[in-house]
Amino acid sequence: MEKLILIKVGGKIVEEEDTLRNLLCDFASIEGYKVLVHGGGRSATRIAERLGIESRMVNGRRITDAETLKVVTMVYGGLVNKNIVAGLQAMGVNALGLTGADMNLMRSEKRPVAEVDYGFVGDVKEVNADLLASLIHQGVVPVLAPLTHDKLGHMLNTNADTIAGEAAKALARHFDVTLMFCFEKKGVLRDENDDESVIPEIDRDLFKRYVEEGVIQGGMIPKLENAFQAIDAGVKEVIITQASEIGGGKGTRVS
Amino acid sequence: MEKLILIKVGGKIVEEEDTLRNLLCDFASIEGYKVLVHGGGRSATRIAERLGIESRMVNGRRITDAETLKVVTMVYGGLVNKNIVAGLQAMGVNALGLTGADMNLMRSEKRPVAEVDYGFVGDVKEVNADLLASLIHQGVVPVLAPLTHDKLGHMLNTNADTIAGEAAKALARHFDVTLMFCFEKKGVLRDENDDESVIPEIDRDLFKRYVEEGVIQGGMIPKLENAFQAIDAGVKEVIITQASEIGGGKGTRVS
Repeated sequence: MEKLILIKVGGKIVEEEDTLRNLLCDFASIEGYKVLVHGGGRSATRIAERLGIESRMVNGRRITDAETLKVVTMVYGGLVNKNIVAGLQAMGVNALGLTGADMNLMRSEKRPVAEVDYGFVGDVKEVNADLLASLIHQGVVPVLAPLTHDKLGHMLNTNADTIAGEAAKALARHFDVTLMFCFEKKGVLRDENDDESVIPEIDRDLFKRYVEEGVIQGGMIPKLENAFQAIDAGVKEVIITQASEIGGGKGTRVS
Repeated sequence: MEKLILIKVGGKIVEEEDTLRNLLCDFASIEGYKVLVHGGGRSATRIAERLGIESRMVNGRRITDAETLKVVTMVYGGLVNKNIVAGLQAMGVNALGLTGADMNLMRSEKRPVAEVDYGFVGDVKEVNADLLASLIHQGVVPVLAPLTHDKLGHMLNTNADTIAGEAAKALARHFDVTLMFCFEKKGVLRDENDDESVIPEIDRDLFKRYVEEGVIQGGMIPKLENAFQAIDAGVKEVIITQASEIGGGKGTRVS
């Protein structure tokens, strides 16, 4: 199978003109098949504020009421996505912006209300990547916004890490997929106060040991569990790194 | 060649829940290859107002300054487009929302400043419909937002009638295209005070006579000139009618 790299970048990078420009340059220069998944939370918060809509977060996740759903649909699916697409097109990359509703790429179900009512947030139930894979083979570079739909007529807000993981798993049937999660650090750190203490490789055993020892904690635990799950589902490798390293191969390799 | 119907609906119809629902039902029940082009001006004006951005119109066209461009990119490309796509998906139509930036579908150039500076408005220069035609053959139903890009990294605002005409002309190389413009009247009227006085067929000679006689005037003149131009460029037929008639075949047939 041919190789494909799927890169997830957070909102911060795509929402500021300078960092976006650098990212798009780096992304454009990657050879072969590729997919970009983006966030957009900061812009959503900013637009919501200007519209007089309060942004409520619980455990780092946005509570998506009806008004907020409109905002994220506009901001993720319109503003952020189309700016990335236009930016890549200018660099000769044949980008195509997509949400989970487009070509029924990702069907989700509204998250059941448990301790927290997250509102119009979708948990992915089905990914239809065959048409997407065929487009990629024709040179199209998908740019995925963190939105899904319930196939009952409603858009739903879905975490960009989840979108990246689900897309990578579905595309693993068509390509040898490398899934790259970009965040603000150079990789998974052995010492959170030392930015250079990147763990170069991690497998389940080491992960377990590091969690027990308290070396890995907090938000890094679900991120890595997500990565191992992708590996189990056929993704070739997962790399956790900084956006400035997407061409480089540095960071933490999860296997 | 196989038939394709390309339907352009104005903003009003897609921006109110009841009329949108009816439109999507009617559109979903059309058999064969189809494309939907939508506006969204009223939502853009509403959102702009809530964001404290003034909407300025000249000759019925929006002046698109930098802030307004962000609004139309969000509203046309995100909110309106994705709601239509999700609505059609719920009806089993494999919709795909697109702007002119996606797959470089429509490259435009910023309109030169003449008497009026329209701002970030794009005049279409190039349409790349080959990939689109191949997707349509695979059962995908494109939903086009009234946005283009300059291939220099910028989105541009482009009139939905223009998008529809340009898409129809480009697709005419792949399909027998019927282009349907929906507006608030049942068709081109002989008497603007009589909604039933629809002119069933019009050709260039009749158009010329009606313009000379003052029967056809105002905004209907560029609409019809647009229609004749599409016919000249290979579009099979152009129909001007009401959104409620998209399944019916009533209205004014331009040939």
